[in-house]
Amino acid sequence: MKKSALQKIRAAYRPKLPVELEGAVVAVEGKPTQSVADQEEIKALFPNTYGLPELSFKKDPNPVAPTSNRPLNVGVILSGGQAPGGHNVISGLFDGIKKINRDSRLFGFLMGPGGLVDHQYKELTAEIIDEYRNTGGFDIIGSGRTKLELKEQFDKGLEILKELGIEALVIIGGDDSNTNAAILAEYYKSINAGVQVIGCPKTIDGDLKNNVIETSFGFDTATKTYCEVIGNIQRDCNSARKYWHFIKLMGRSASHIALECALQTQPNVCIISEEVEAKNQTLADVVNYIADIVAKRAANGENFGTVLIPEGLIEFIPAVKRLIAELNDLLAKSADKVAGLDEDALRAFVIENLTPENSKTYASLPHDVARQLTLDRDPHGNVQVSLIETEKLISRMVADRLEEMRAEGKYNGKFATMHHFFGYEGRCAAPSNFDADYCYALGYNAACLIKAGVTGYMTLLRDLTRPSVQWIPGGIPITMMMNMERRHGEMKPVIQKALVDLDGTPFKKFAAKRDNWAVETSFIYPGPVQYFGPAEVCDQPSMTLKYEQLDR
Amino acid sequence: MKKSALQKIRAAYRPKLPVELEGAVVAVEGKPTQSVADQEEIKALFPNTYGLPELSFKKDPNPVAPTSNRPLNVGVILSGGQAPGGHNVISGLFDGIKKINRDSRLFGFLMGPGGLVDHQYKELTAEIIDEYRNTGGFDIIGSGRTKLELKEQFDKGLEILKELGIEALVIIGGDDSNTNAAILAEYYKSINAGVQVIGCPKTIDGDLKNNVIETSFGFDTATKTYCEVIGNIQRDCNSARKYWHFIKLMGRSASHIALECALQTQPNVCIISEEVEAKNQTLADVVNYIADIVAKRAANGENFGTVLIPEGLIEFIPAVKRLIAELNDLLAKSADKVAGLDEDALRAFVIENLTPENSKTYASLPHDVARQLTLDRDPHGNVQVSLIETEKLISRMVADRLEEMRAEGKYNGKFATMHHFFGYEGRCAAPSNFDADYCYALGYNAACLIKAGVTGYMTLLRDLTRPSVQWIPGGIPITMMMNMERRHGEMKPVIQKALVDLDGTPFKKFAAKRDNWAVETSFIYPGPVQYFGPAEVCDQPSMTLKYEQLDR
Repeated sequence: MKKSALQKIRAAYRPKLPVELEGAVVAVEGKPTQSVADQEEIKALFPNTYGLPELSFKKDPNPVAPTSNRPLNVGVILSGGQAPGGHNVISGLFDGIKKINRDSRLFGFLMGPGGLVDHQYKELTAEIIDEYRNTGGFDIIGSGRTKLELKEQFDKGLEILKELGIEALVIIGGDDSNTNAAILAEYYKSINAGVQVIGCPKTIDGDLKNNVIETSFGFDTATKTYCEVIGNIQRDCNSARKYWHFIKLMGRSASHIALECALQTQPNVCIISEEVEAKNQTLADVVNYIADIVAKRAANGENFGTVLIPEGLIEFIPAVKRLIAELNDLLAKSADKVAGLDEDALRAFVIENLTPENSKTYASLPHDVARQLTLDRDPHGNVQVSLIETEKLISRMVADRLEEMRAEGKYNGKFATMHHFFGYEGRCAAPSNFDADYCYALGYNAACLIKAGVTGYMTLLRDLTRPSVQWIPGGIPITMMMNMERRHGEMKPVIQKALVDLDGTPFKKFAAKRDNWAVETSFIYPGPVQYFGPAEVCDQPSMTLKYEQLDR
Repeated sequence: MKKSALQKIRAAYRPKLPVELEGAVVAVEGKPTQSVADQEEIKALFPNTYGLPELSFKKDPNPVAPTSNRPLNVGVILSGGQAPGGHNVISGLFDGIKKINRDSRLFGFLMGPGGLVDHQYKELTAEIIDEYRNTGGFDIIGSGRTKLELKEQFDKGLEILKELGIEALVIIGGDDSNTNAAILAEYYKSINAGVQVIGCPKTIDGDLKNNVIETSFGFDTATKTYCEVIGNIQRDCNSARKYWHFIKLMGRSASHIALECALQTQPNVCIISEEVEAKNQTLADVVNYIADIVAKRAANGENFGTVLIPEGLIEFIPAVKRLIAELNDLLAKSADKVAGLDEDALRAFVIENLTPENSKTYASLPHDVARQLTLDRDPHGNVQVSLIETEKLISRMVADRLEEMRAEGKYNGKFATMHHFFGYEGRCAAPSNFDADYCYALGYNAACLIKAGVTGYMTLLRDLTRPSVQWIPGGIPITMMMNMERRHGEMKPVIQKALVDLDGTPFKKFAAKRDNWAVETSFIYPGPVQYFGPAEVCDQPSMTLKYEQLDR
């Protein structure tokens, strides 16, 4: 494998471990926990793993020689979308179990949770691990989106775990994967399978956090990478002074990524989906808001600017949400009728058969977006929201609105646009120092949780805005983060997804400044992630994390 | 202006000047020069500035105190598209003229060459210059695309130059802007205007180079920025193992950017426009080439990969080139007839009225691309080639070809695609150490050329693969790079544009490896530009430059 100069140098980086994890540690039990809501239901579903105490670690006052610890066989799974630092979780876990006993072994299940069910795995040796330290990507074992939900999957997985003598399984994933980790832990405990399950909070989207988990890993690096290119585009925008750049950002439903990027780069506009929903705004409201800013800037002679749009926006606009829901139903139940229709006939059929409000929304959309809604559907017949080019949809509607305003004498500028979508550019970036340290410590700490004999816990570090050596390691029962939610028509125990809190400091800081940023050009240019150099450049956590610590 | 941590630290970076430029220097005349071709015609057009000698600099054996030099008033213009390092050219020029005499003054003309004609300028004081050292973008004075070609423009410009007492003008631009700089130099010389004109080689596209100019500035940083995101996408591609990523790269006609990115990241496919033209390939040839690689990888169970596509590709496909030329003519002369036609009628009209070969090409294109060719035209009625989403066009045609191959039993895989276009992401990145040093030295060296009293010269540094302190400064007459070419139906003196040399080492190195890269997954992940840290990470020139030095 030929490597870049940076890959070679970066391989030698040694993540800074919290001092509390240096040397042998013992677990200290804290108070018993309960779930964030629906305590009775969650308790009934998790009789063996509910209500367990929080854990912290302290130095073992009577450490034993590593040779007197039993070696541990551990399995690890990467679940869901890539996030920078996954390889460091695995290398931290590897070093952690080797520290316990040098004969410990680590097995990686391949291409996600499916590898456990299908018995696809490989042993991760020191040689393999060393190839992947401090690198981006999940390619060491691959990832996948198979959901571990069924007893048959659990039993099939147990076969290979038993065959390999694996006593603990670490699942690195987002909210759904960790929910499933908790269900798996409960099941294995209930049948005395002798396999512990530990979760690890991963997602660039930033939506897996709460009053104990301060941030999911990968958010820091991914947002810094997006901020680099947004900053570069803003500098171009400010130099050429002739384009409005509409930039869509990955992040699924939540707008954390867009908000973090806005705080770091100070664009002229950033839409926050959670606010759009809270204010029950229509697509026209969003479009008018942007068009008004374009017009104000044009009045100052500035026919250029930047607009950040979160990937999930379209789903948060109540009118579009209702339209999509009815469209899914209508096209499902009329499958026979619409099968033979050409594009125009299908459009007419839809407009005629939707309820008046939804019909009006549908007719108001640009034709090709409306077409995407009716034609491009997933295997379950549902609209594929993520394929909708929201950035183009909105810029086109802004252009139309500006022409109306021009006719009314309220706008007299030029509106030329460029479009960008950033997601894959950042999910596999080599982890920033923050994510490199955080992930390594999460993995190492997971080994400590395994040694402590617990199951259904998530590996945890707190005080993340302090230097990494001062972070506080521990563990929390996953059930503690759960509530009951309706999913596919059924009430299920799930980890609450963290959307942007409109009462939190990150949003408030943004909201206090955005009117200035809209009219004055206040762009900041963060530049590329730096690994070497002054701490204020290389070791800063995200602004979201810094501001959220103020709320704690 | 609020700044990022990196902006603050980077402001203090002191570019490393070649030792030959430290202290006072004197110019040394080399041999007289002649143009690369058409010597008689070029000589006749540039009677006052043709055939001048190359210049180099050496330490002044009898330096005078700076106070005994006259102060110089100098003007500077940024012309054309942004490129990383423009601000450093200006700060080097500023420091250079201040070193000659601290009362020297620098004036920037605003928003490109138009600022000279329209008398829009601002004085660049030490305070302003210090705000922009080592930053990306051209926002210090803005840039523009007005061409300086007409005597009236030259005379109008001279008014403001005289008014401000400016004795020398530095034009920072690409091949066209430097051609115009030479014409302006000749004109001012011919009328004894008393204004020297110096050019500076700028463009991320890398197409302004020859046997004396080793590289244009900005290419290094822009390609490194594209390589960072391409590498990240490749890591994602290799982790998720389910997408083919089609990545279009800026670079106008030339494929230097795509080639450099291929050498650095080793994608599965990279198309080089110059090769497509040399081999007289059709769009179908390109599509079949890619489809065959997709099928080979699928046979190995690898339904993922990366394809780099140069922005100018479509223009290099002879059949498409001919189609576009005839379309431009047809639609211009049939303007009245086609004005009222709807989309379908227009399509039918075009297919009916083109010559058979072009008609067939047109009909073979996906409908919406064909539509883009007929509908979206620039103010001169020409097809806007840069708006064509070549990356989507080609991936769609590859998908169609794969279905044919599937029917023939030659392909049995999955082909899911993602699309990217990178350009604006890199043009205004903060300059790499290479570009920061190179640009500063180009600007400082321009001041030395001004002091030497020459006009129609380009500022020059050689031996750029050595450490920057060892670079060799000098100057060459711009006419030396010229030949006669047909432009808009007329023979004009122009600087030869450097396309990818299919006999040069960069292309040969790529061509020797690409079949391996196609089938084996050999991705390299360069990571983000680093400003601090080991020299092998921070101070490397582009691979194109390194390989081209082997050819010198």
